[in-house]
Amino acid sequence: MPLENPFYTAEMQGEYQLHSLGRFELEDGGVISDLQLAVATYGELNGAKDNAILVTTWFSGTHATWWQVYLGEGRALDPSRYFVIVVNQIGNGLSTSPHTTDDPSIAMSKFPHVRIGDDVRAQEQLLRETFGIESLALVVGGSMGAQQTWEWAVRYPEKVLRAAPIAGTAQNTPHDYLFTQTLMDAITSDPGWKGGEYTAASDVAGGLSRHADIWAVVGLTTDFWRSEFWRGIEPSLEGLGWETFEEFQENFVRLLFRMMDPNALLCMGWKWQRGDVARHTDGDLAAALGRVTAKTFVMPIEQDMFFPPRDCEAEQQLTPNSELRTLHSIAGHFGLFGFEQTYLDEVDRHLKELLATEV
Amino acid sequence: MPLENPFYTAEMQGEYQLHSLGRFELEDGGVISDLQLAVATYGELNGAKDNAILVTTWFSGTHATWWQVYLGEGRALDPSRYFVIVVNQIGNGLSTSPHTTDDPSIAMSKFPHVRIGDDVRAQEQLLRETFGIESLALVVGGSMGAQQTWEWAVRYPEKVLRAAPIAGTAQNTPHDYLFTQTLMDAITSDPGWKGGEYTAASDVAGGLSRHADIWAVVGLTTDFWRSEFWRGIEPSLEGLGWETFEEFQENFVRLLFRMMDPNALLCMGWKWQRGDVARHTDGDLAAALGRVTAKTFVMPIEQDMFFPPRDCEAEQQLTPNSELRTLHSIAGHFGLFGFEQTYLDEVDRHLKELLATEV
Repeated sequence: MPLENPFYTAEMQGEYQLHSLGRFELEDGGVISDLQLAVATYGELNGAKDNAILVTTWFSGTHATWWQVYLGEGRALDPSRYFVIVVNQIGNGLSTSPHTTDDPSIAMSKFPHVRIGDDVRAQEQLLRETFGIESLALVVGGSMGAQQTWEWAVRYPEKVLRAAPIAGTAQNTPHDYLFTQTLMDAITSDPGWKGGEYTAASDVAGGLSRHADIWAVVGLTTDFWRSEFWRGIEPSLEGLGWETFEEFQENFVRLLFRMMDPNALLCMGWKWQRGDVARHTDGDLAAALGRVTAKTFVMPIEQDMFFPPRDCEAEQQLTPNSELRTLHSIAGHFGLFGFEQTYLDEVDRHLKELLATEV
Repeated sequence: MPLENPFYTAEMQGEYQLHSLGRFELEDGGVISDLQLAVATYGELNGAKDNAILVTTWFSGTHATWWQVYLGEGRALDPSRYFVIVVNQIGNGLSTSPHTTDDPSIAMSKFPHVRIGDDVRAQEQLLRETFGIESLALVVGGSMGAQQTWEWAVRYPEKVLRAAPIAGTAQNTPHDYLFTQTLMDAITSDPGWKGGEYTAASDVAGGLSRHADIWAVVGLTTDFWRSEFWRGIEPSLEGLGWETFEEFQENFVRLLFRMMDPNALLCMGWKWQRGDVARHTDGDLAAALGRVTAKTFVMPIEQDMFFPPRDCEAEQQLTPNSELRTLHSIAGHFGLFGFEQTYLDEVDRHLKELLATEV
């Protein structure tokens, strides 16, 4: 029986629709008997079906941040011009996930391993079957969303006209593998996790808090904390503010992750660790990236501790028809949340230029 | 009764002597009834007693790395010219520590809180009473050793002629406070820790491993892991090598931290979180650093994720008679281990120049 969790609702995340893809075979051997993708769309698909933009989601994220801070009239991702489709990744708590499935054979600890390639194949099927979309004006996503963006550009080069992987890599690095492991181990080492068979996410509150604490160290930056940038961040829940950095950590970062489902995070973590476009080319990353035909802007964030610009630039240099467009945020990787107008302006400027590029 | 731990022996760490300071009152209110400092000396004190160099130790570290990779004839820290005294910090497993004391009133979970200022006061007393040293040609240390170096320069400016804080700050940052908390929580969340009353360090092996994993992510760098730099590192124990990064993580980083004592790490972690020379000046960091009269080379390591050069430079700019001398290591903070001859050459070049400076 699915676990109730108010975090994974339209009230918390914004409206979305569930699209069933039916039986879905996974690359790692498992099967989801009825894969449901949680999809949010903005704007309208034109008659030529050439104004579609696909947005992919990051670890722990949903479509929420996209409509909240990245979309808008006059912005790069402008629903009055484009049909913007945000597809929640498998296992993120909205699309089919360990705690939401009503198929007992894959519930909770029995949930099969999902790979980035599974998400991208499911998204391609959804776009084709549900919307008749055969070509994307742009694929864009941050972090694990960048992994999916890269996978799209390598797997379906004929369908991706432009690509913008933000703060993420095409081939996960050993450092990120280890980082993700610390995040996952913070959860699984909590006795309340019970091998994945907890009865409420709150049983794993300790593990989720420690998970959040590691994010605060590696996802943010020394500058963010030293400058007390958090003083300018609006509390998401009324009555919960912060006067000290410890209170911000408790009432923002820990609070956010404690609302999430532990197995959902673990499903995404396993997937993140193994993101690698070179699976298409027997491990040859240069050969995989050489397949990309999309005009590609590779967009790392300058102070990102685990997807640093140098790692993203190494991949950009292997990608034909690509450019490095480095973003700037005092929040490092968490700059993705769009805390700063300057960062959002940078993103918009680059994406507008990319969308204006003839391909 | 003290716990046996072969890691904290002369066989593993190199020769040292225990010096008793007797009853020692701590800044945070506790008392160590007989404080013993583990001290290793190299070279001879000259008649003028003006050739003494004090070396302070980092979190989890001992005097071992110093004699193994930083000292030597012709090097900056040359025992044929200088009397080099390495003092193990309180709680590091060699100097009085939670698991070594035979005073049951402060054993294990009852061990009192120790501050950086306690270490520095104890070191000053030791140098004065045991060796008659009233002036130091140089104080140098890395990481928490840099915290002690800064504390020396602010607390006893008349005794410190030159100072070289490497990869550490005078005032701990909020980011580092949070980072250290993740390290500590990895240990205390292990049920085997038993509130500090475990009967063997091996009871906490899981927590120590997770502690080590966080170090692998924040202490090293994406470049270190991506370039497989670990292939060139010599195994410290025979028969334990590595062919993959996972094996290196298990047989080097985890193995190292699993040999250590959990309460010793926690004692040092608490101390690290609160290192702050501005305790002398009612929180005014500029005023505290303004007291420094030593010729000071501030030496961050370029890719250090938690003591990044910009944080160290901010303090250097508040310090009279100081210069920023940035070091370079692909291992980031763990560059301190001295994996690279190029790094060691940089350290030697700067320290030789500093020691040659007339003061």
